[in-house]
Amino acid sequence: MTQANFGVVGMAVMGRNLALNIESRGYTVAIFNRSKEKTEDVIASHPDKNFVPSYDIASFVNSIEKPRRIMLMVQAGPGTDATIQNLLPHLDKGDILIDGGNTFYKDTERRNAELADSGINFIGTGVSGGEKGALEGPSIMPGGQKEAYELVKDVLEEISAKAPEDGKPCVTYIGPAGAGHYVKMVHNGIEYGDMQLIAESYDLMQRLLGLSATEMQSVFAEWNKGELDSYLIEITTDILTHQDDQGQDGPVVDYILDAAGNKGTGKWTSQSALDSGVPLPLITESVFARYISAYKEERVAASKILKAPDFKFEGDKAELIEKIRQALYFSKIMSYAQGFAQLRVASKENNWDLPFGEIAAIWRAGCIIRARFLQKITDAYGRDEDLANLLLDEYFIDITAKYQSAVRDVVALAVQAGVPVPTFSSAIAYFDSYRSENLPANLIQAQRDYFGAHTYERKDKPGIFHYSWYDEK
Amino acid sequence: MTQANFGVVGMAVMGRNLALNIESRGYTVAIFNRSKEKTEDVIASHPDKNFVPSYDIASFVNSIEKPRRIMLMVQAGPGTDATIQNLLPHLDKGDILIDGGNTFYKDTERRNAELADSGINFIGTGVSGGEKGALEGPSIMPGGQKEAYELVKDVLEEISAKAPEDGKPCVTYIGPAGAGHYVKMVHNGIEYGDMQLIAESYDLMQRLLGLSATEMQSVFAEWNKGELDSYLIEITTDILTHQDDQGQDGPVVDYILDAAGNKGTGKWTSQSALDSGVPLPLITESVFARYISAYKEERVAASKILKAPDFKFEGDKAELIEKIRQALYFSKIMSYAQGFAQLRVASKENNWDLPFGEIAAIWRAGCIIRARFLQKITDAYGRDEDLANLLLDEYFIDITAKYQSAVRDVVALAVQAGVPVPTFSSAIAYFDSYRSENLPANLIQAQRDYFGAHTYERKDKPGIFHYSWYDEK
Repeated sequence: MTQANFGVVGMAVMGRNLALNIESRGYTVAIFNRSKEKTEDVIASHPDKNFVPSYDIASFVNSIEKPRRIMLMVQAGPGTDATIQNLLPHLDKGDILIDGGNTFYKDTERRNAELADSGINFIGTGVSGGEKGALEGPSIMPGGQKEAYELVKDVLEEISAKAPEDGKPCVTYIGPAGAGHYVKMVHNGIEYGDMQLIAESYDLMQRLLGLSATEMQSVFAEWNKGELDSYLIEITTDILTHQDDQGQDGPVVDYILDAAGNKGTGKWTSQSALDSGVPLPLITESVFARYISAYKEERVAASKILKAPDFKFEGDKAELIEKIRQALYFSKIMSYAQGFAQLRVASKENNWDLPFGEIAAIWRAGCIIRARFLQKITDAYGRDEDLANLLLDEYFIDITAKYQSAVRDVVALAVQAGVPVPTFSSAIAYFDSYRSENLPANLIQAQRDYFGAHTYERKDKPGIFHYSWYDEK
Repeated sequence: MTQANFGVVGMAVMGRNLALNIESRGYTVAIFNRSKEKTEDVIASHPDKNFVPSYDIASFVNSIEKPRRIMLMVQAGPGTDATIQNLLPHLDKGDILIDGGNTFYKDTERRNAELADSGINFIGTGVSGGEKGALEGPSIMPGGQKEAYELVKDVLEEISAKAPEDGKPCVTYIGPAGAGHYVKMVHNGIEYGDMQLIAESYDLMQRLLGLSATEMQSVFAEWNKGELDSYLIEITTDILTHQDDQGQDGPVVDYILDAAGNKGTGKWTSQSALDSGVPLPLITESVFARYISAYKEERVAASKILKAPDFKFEGDKAELIEKIRQALYFSKIMSYAQGFAQLRVASKENNWDLPFGEIAAIWRAGCIIRARFLQKITDAYGRDEDLANLLLDEYFIDITAKYQSAVRDVVALAVQAGVPVPTFSSAIAYFDSYRSENLPANLIQAQRDYFGAHTYERKDKPGIFHYSWYDEK
């Protein structure tokens, strides 16, 4: 009987597509699903593929060559724990489980430690690219035992996306234990930020300039030819071409309810930054922007009561569009600077030794945030692998100097016009805070010492001080 | 032997001051501390007070009349658990433990449930006002068993601060289990926001107008006579009068390092809002502003590299100061609107039935955020106890209509000048988002449906939709 080279548990769309992707590279793939119907359906739909289906977990495990390489594509959370518990009695020391779900990195750390006690390797890996990416080539962010990674590296490299710049596979060893899922979490947070920045650009063109979806389609198409070239700008362009499919006139986007959902990964990114003492305002504002969008009914009520400012844009249209483009690029840089600063702190806290430049490199294709811009980040870490913040790299120094007046103009205009730009304004606040030798936190420290005797440090000499605020003047 | 009416565990400054406060109302107070020196010191310093000291936990518990009322003023976290475990064998059913520490509300929920199994009541209470408040009258936010609260109500009312408006005690039953500590957490988050807003006002006057600490002292003193009248403005005014005590010329505030610390309660507020789907951008920006301030060395390096905009303020000084005052009041309203919206969601999620108007009322004195302004919130909930958001109340509708142009001018100016105003700009973004019938989240939903088949709702009819983006144009 043929032994499979690789196993995949979970035949929902992501697992099925990954299995097809692996099989297409010349591997025989063992497949299993909790309910047998999904497995039967895969076999029926793909009768000519080298799949080895099993309908009980023992047969599944036994159908795979040792050391076994088994990818879990099941729902993150208790579903993953249950799957691991079912597999465990049938596994042998040295086998490798690979969790490809959107798992919270602390769960991955726990599972990695628990399984290590039984001699089982556990790789937690981010897989980005959606259904299409899973099938055609995702960006893959694996963390876990380095020696286990070496045994799955060939397969992961083959199934991953390839960067258009140099053809390199979009996968690299991220670091031990939870490092892979942590990096995927920050990837998703950055995705929230990118989407909100695009949404604010769209809103400004719509509200200030009165552009239609079709007119904006041309703007985004143009932007996608330059430094903003990215998957999210590309799909925005495409989205704006699609007409309604429910009988209304015009583009479908005009009929979609403005109440954004979320799966929680953006929230995790913000919460982790809050725990690590890392300023991550832009991504966090983008999470809150989704939340406030979901208060649709309250907003409709408020819109009838709370006054808008009296404002009419009378400047040059083309000039403003170019300023919005520059503001978008500038703000995107702030978001990535914050995200990579978060990775830097997490890397130190956890002794992960994260490869920042390679992380940007493996995001160049396959994943949702893929963009030409990422090469700039890889280049920056190539110049200085211990860069404290992207803003201190020569490319980013130049481009922010060049584009800062545009973002200032756009934010000032939006604020006067009453168009909310939470992430654009957060971007410029971060830039101005970061480049401030002095911030007013001295007053905050004085207040804290005044009411809570929390003490403070001084600018002119080292030491911890407390002032006798109540004693004398 | 005299039985004490009340017990206090923990003789650090907060516990000692609370014990003195309780004793001053005519109660005999049993006191205990893990190390006996602190207890001995309290007795030596206050030989004439009705204190009953004990040096072992059994004697301490036995010295208190039943049902025992024992307040824990120990370090939040494992220290609280250890204290409870030590007390437990000596307690009787119906006794009441009151945790007055800065405890995370989920720990309070856990302890309340665990102790309820043994028939012990557990009240988790916020106590705000610092050392001075503990001694002279704090604001108290108790949550736990209602019937237990009734048995401590008299003492808590006597020791609490009294509102200047109507003399009412600044304590009320907040709700079951963790409700008290949750409300204290949001109180602290609001405190972070208030402090950052004052700091930004100070920074704008300093950087744009070149005002000295002494000149700003007059401005804050003036502000404190009007609608901004509050403890934090009052102490800011006082802080600016204090000269350096380390041999330098001029006000001490000019020598305090601009790197703000934090004890984590602001972070908890943001993280809880993120968990509950509540937009809480202003408080969160104030937490991040503290974080970025702590990156002092990086900021100093960045200040030499990243270009400031070319800007000089040439308008009217007095006019700008008044605009900053209005911007501060406007932004403060946004912060409280967000904080109370968070309380509303938490109240529903946990079935707490929080008394919003009374919460604002008990913050009018004793606590760090005490302010004349809080009466406006109590009044608003008096008009509509189920108010969805403070911004929908008549007072707040009027004042935001009146002050919004000032905050727009201040933010636009600050952004052009390169002065970071993360909370001011977050305030106007929240206002403009909340009063927007339509936000650009329709585009975000389209993107999510495009790359992840996440589906969307429509503006024109109910239902869940998915568009076949890849099939046709």
